[in-house]
Parts: sequence; structure tokens; C-alpha cells
Amino acid sequence: MQVGIGDDCAVLRLPRGHEALVTTDFNLENVHFRRAWHPPDSVGHRCLARGLSDIAAMGGEPMAAFLSLALPPDVEQRWVDEFTKGLIRLAQRFRVPLAGGDTAQSPRGILADIVVLGAVPAGKAVLRSGARAGDLIYVTGRLGGAAAVLEQLRDGKNVRLKDSPAHFYPTPRLKVGRYLREHGLATAMIDISDGLSTDLNHICEASRAGARIEATRVPIGDNVRDLALALHGGDDYELLFTAARKRRVPGKIAGIAVTCIGEIVRGRGMKIVQDGREKKLTPGGWQHFEG
Amino acid sequence: MQVGIGDDCAVLRLPRGHEALVTTDFNLENVHFRRAWHPPDSVGHRCLARGLSDIAAMGGEPMAAFLSLALPPDVEQRWVDEFTKGLIRLAQRFRVPLAGGDTAQSPRGILADIVVLGAVPAGKAVLRSGARAGDLIYVTGRLGGAAAVLEQLRDGKNVRLKDSPAHFYPTPRLKVGRYLREHGLATAMIDISDGLSTDLNHICEASRAGARIEATRVPIGDNVRDLALALHGGDDYELLFTAARKRRVPGKIAGIAVTCIGEIVRGRGMKIVQDGREKKLTPGGWQHFEG
Repeated sequence: MQVGIGDDCAVLRLPRGHEALVTTDFNLENVHFRRAWHPPDSVGHRCLARGLSDIAAMGGEPMAAFLSLALPPDVEQRWVDEFTKGLIRLAQRFRVPLAGGDTAQSPRGILADIVVLGAVPAGKAVLRSGARAGDLIYVTGRLGGAAAVLEQLRDGKNVRLKDSPAHFYPTPRLKVGRYLREHGLATAMIDISDGLSTDLNHICEASRAGARIEATRVPIGDNVRDLALALHGGDDYELLFTAARKRRVPGKIAGIAVTCIGEIVRGRGMKIVQDGREKKLTPGGWQHFEG
Repeated sequence: MQVGIGDDCAVLRLPRGHEALVTTDFNLENVHFRRAWHPPDSVGHRCLARGLSDIAAMGGEPMAAFLSLALPPDVEQRWVDEFTKGLIRLAQRFRVPLAGGDTAQSPRGILADIVVLGAVPAGKAVLRSGARAGDLIYVTGRLGGAAAVLEQLRDGKNVRLKDSPAHFYPTPRLKVGRYLREHGLATAMIDISDGLSTDLNHICEASRAGARIEATRVPIGDNVRDLALALHGGDDYELLFTAARKRRVPGKIAGIAVTCIGEIVRGRGMKIVQDGREKKLTPGGWQHFEG
């Protein structure tokens, strides 16, 4: 970074021959988090993780983050300090400088908007649109864990932070995304922020193709009792990608399990094979917890 | 732009040998605008103008804009359409693609966060920190117009949109900023968003220098009766810059008047010469209209 916080703009040099990646994500109180449920450092962590996960899904490298934060009068300084600590901790882990942003007073509720600038070798960004019929579909890690915790929180259950990293401190899969891009393995990629069914549908729509997945192959988190959470629950921040059938995809990349869950097919729409029968899979998607 | 709205990130190629500029600005209802005072297309215009003005203040070229917009349930679709129209109209005028963003439901009030990605030849960004004692201080256009309109609105007066472009439809001084950078004229530059006194103070602080301006030389807008509005009123989005005394600065750049208002001096603090006497100029700054 050339110039950071304190001038009209941040000035950043991208590596030679690289394109810029830009992603922006809102994190709003009572929409994306609740003060009663999420400790402030988790809110800060999740805020940046969302942006980094988008960079990972392109196979990119994060270069700098920008935080716009509007605070209502009822927020204590301690909350802000802890929020910042959680965000900075994740930023340092991935060596992403916090290079700017904006602050304002909010009339109600905490409002954060995170922007991440990344870089990727020109022409090498992994898009959602590259999946072809016959490609196999893969996911990283295990799914549904974040949504399962949210269900527990909704039910008023006591949730231990340390047992629920998938929800409170998700790890953006930057190393996996980079590996897939460097090895030219992924034909299409997206991060699972809205839920497997919704995000797989994004790949299908962008690639003008259909998909068939097998229920028994979907990797389900330890604490997840219901397949529906793994299929439709959001906020897992795992990667969903497709690869040509003839390419060998490792079972583990950067220490993270990679599981084949199905294939891209001709035509449109998504199917799921469950108990020997093929059913329609509709993008159930993640309902923010206001609904 | 390579890939726009619809993938995990926007992918953009910067011109060879250029650095990236990033700026992000909140635009919050009842903090930066009021629905009763500002027609929606003006809110959209001002939203993007703030970001473009920051790019102008670095001598940069805008490459793409990103809008994060959170809407409360009580906003009509027509408001959103007009807001978008105002924003897009300004974007098209400066050939800036709207390349992405985020949307969400807001618990209360309209929340917009605008991000602009720009480019500037490597090492050529005009910073706030380059002013040296002896440099002359210049401003573009006329000051105080936006604040004068705000005062009228506060007083419940009827304000005609067409007579008040400085407030409702400010023009970011991109051409002037580019000219100054290309000709190596400006030693330091900032846009006047918080008011002349506050923004000049930013240059002084960053450059570790002081400033002396002459009251009679400050170019005041037609509708501005009080010098204080020109000195402390914000939202003018004119450029404030310094140039070496020996350099000839044109009286007009890209059709916009450029006025010398004083000089950078040794030491710290700002002075204003008024009625033959030298007084202290304190950063009065722009008070958002909630205060």
C-alpha cells in the first residue's frame, strides 16, 4: 500500500499483470448479527470474513480492506474496541491492511460496510459462469454448521463460542481458492454465503446449465442434525466449485477437506438424489433472521 | 471493466503503470440528506459526487463505482428508481460504470455507502501532505453555495432546485484535478467536503505547515450572504490545492475559475486577514444537520 487512512483516497499498487477485484458487503445489526447473540469481536471477524471470502471465490489475493462504520449513540466504546480487535485480528492473519473507510452516526443500529480490494493475474479470475455439463461439483469443509448455531441461538440455547467457530469465526478459504486458480482446476467458483442450494443455483444460472447432487455426499457439520441446514443454511463461507471430470482434485487442499457432491448437467434446474429418488432442488436460500 | 455485477467480485483492469485509488463514503438519511428536502435523484447524484470528488482530489481517473444500499420498509419503489436515475446520470456523464455493490433491508432510514475505484499514474497521486511554506493556496469555483441552500432549507424556505445546483447537483472537479496532476502544478490537494477551514487544516496538518488566507480573496457564491458559510460550510466539492509560488496557475481550468486565496506559511495554525487585521482561523467545519 502506498498511502492509507488520512488522504482523500487510499493509493495502492497492484502486482504487475494483475487485475483488481472489488467486493462490498453490508453487515447490519439485526439483519446480519445481533448484539445479544454475537460478541463484538465475532461481528468484526465476520464482517471482514465476508469480504475475504468473496476474494477467495475468485481465486484472488486480498490487498486491502476498507471499513465504513455507522454507530448509534447507545453503543459503548468497549463494543467498538472489541469489534475492531476481531476485524484487525483476521486482517493480520491474512496480511490485509485496513486502508481506509468512513465513520458516521447511525440513527439506529450498527451499520458496517466492508470493502475488500484484491488482485488476481489478468484473465485468471475464477468466475461463476465457467461450469460445463459433465463437470463435477465440489465443496470445501462441512456445511450447515453456521446455520445450526443460529438455530440454537434462536431457540435461546447457550452456545459456546469455542465450539462454534464456523458461525462466530469463519475462516475465508483464501488458500484453497488460490490453489484452485493456480492449478487451473476450477471451471467455476462461488463462496457459500447464502446456502448451498442458492449459491449452486447462481453457478447454474451464470453457466446456463443444471446440476445434480447426491444427498449422501453432502459433507455435514458435526453439530448439524438436519440436511436442510447443510443444503440451505447460509454463512458457511466454504467454497463451491466445479472442475472438469478428467482433472484430479485433491481430497484435501491446504488442510481443508474437498468433497465431490455431484455433477453439472445439461439443461436447467437443480436435482438432488435422496433415498434412491431424484427430486427437484430449489434454491431455499438463507433467510436473514429478521424474517 | 472485465466483469461487473453478478459475480463474487467485480474484476477490473487498471491502465498499465497506474496505481489504484479507493474511496468510500456513507450517505445516511437525516445525517447527509433528508427525504423532505432532497429529491431522490439529488440524493443519488450527491452520493456518487462525494466519491468522484475524492478521486478528483488525488488527480485520478474514476474507473468504477460500487453502491451498497439498505432501504427501510417505508421507502417507495419510485424513490429508489429516482435515486438510481440521479446516480446513473452522473456516472454516465463521467463514464464510470456501476460495477457492483450490495443491498439489504434497513431497520430505519436509508443507508447508502458509495465506493469508487480510480486509477492514477504510479507515484503521481496528489496528496494532502505536499504543501511547503511559500506555496500559494487556490480554490476552484465559489464557496458557501451548498451551505447557504441548507440554511434556507432549515429555515423552511422554498428552494428552487435549478437555482441551487451547488447543493443539489454538485459537479466533481475531475477535469481540474486531472489537469493539475498532468501539469504537475498542485503540491497538495483536497476536496472541500467539510468546509474550507476544516479541509485547509487537513492540508496544514498533513504538510506540517500553517496557512494564511485573505478574506477578500475567498470566492463567495452568488446566494451566499455570510463569509462564514464560505469559510466553514461543507459540501461544496470544490478543490483546494497548493502550488509553488513560481508556477503560473491559470485563472480558469476546464472552464472553472481558479482563485488564489492565500499562502502556506512556516509553523502551525491558520490565519485569516480581514479588515486589515490578522485573526486566527479555526477549523469551524461542517456540522451535519442533526447537531
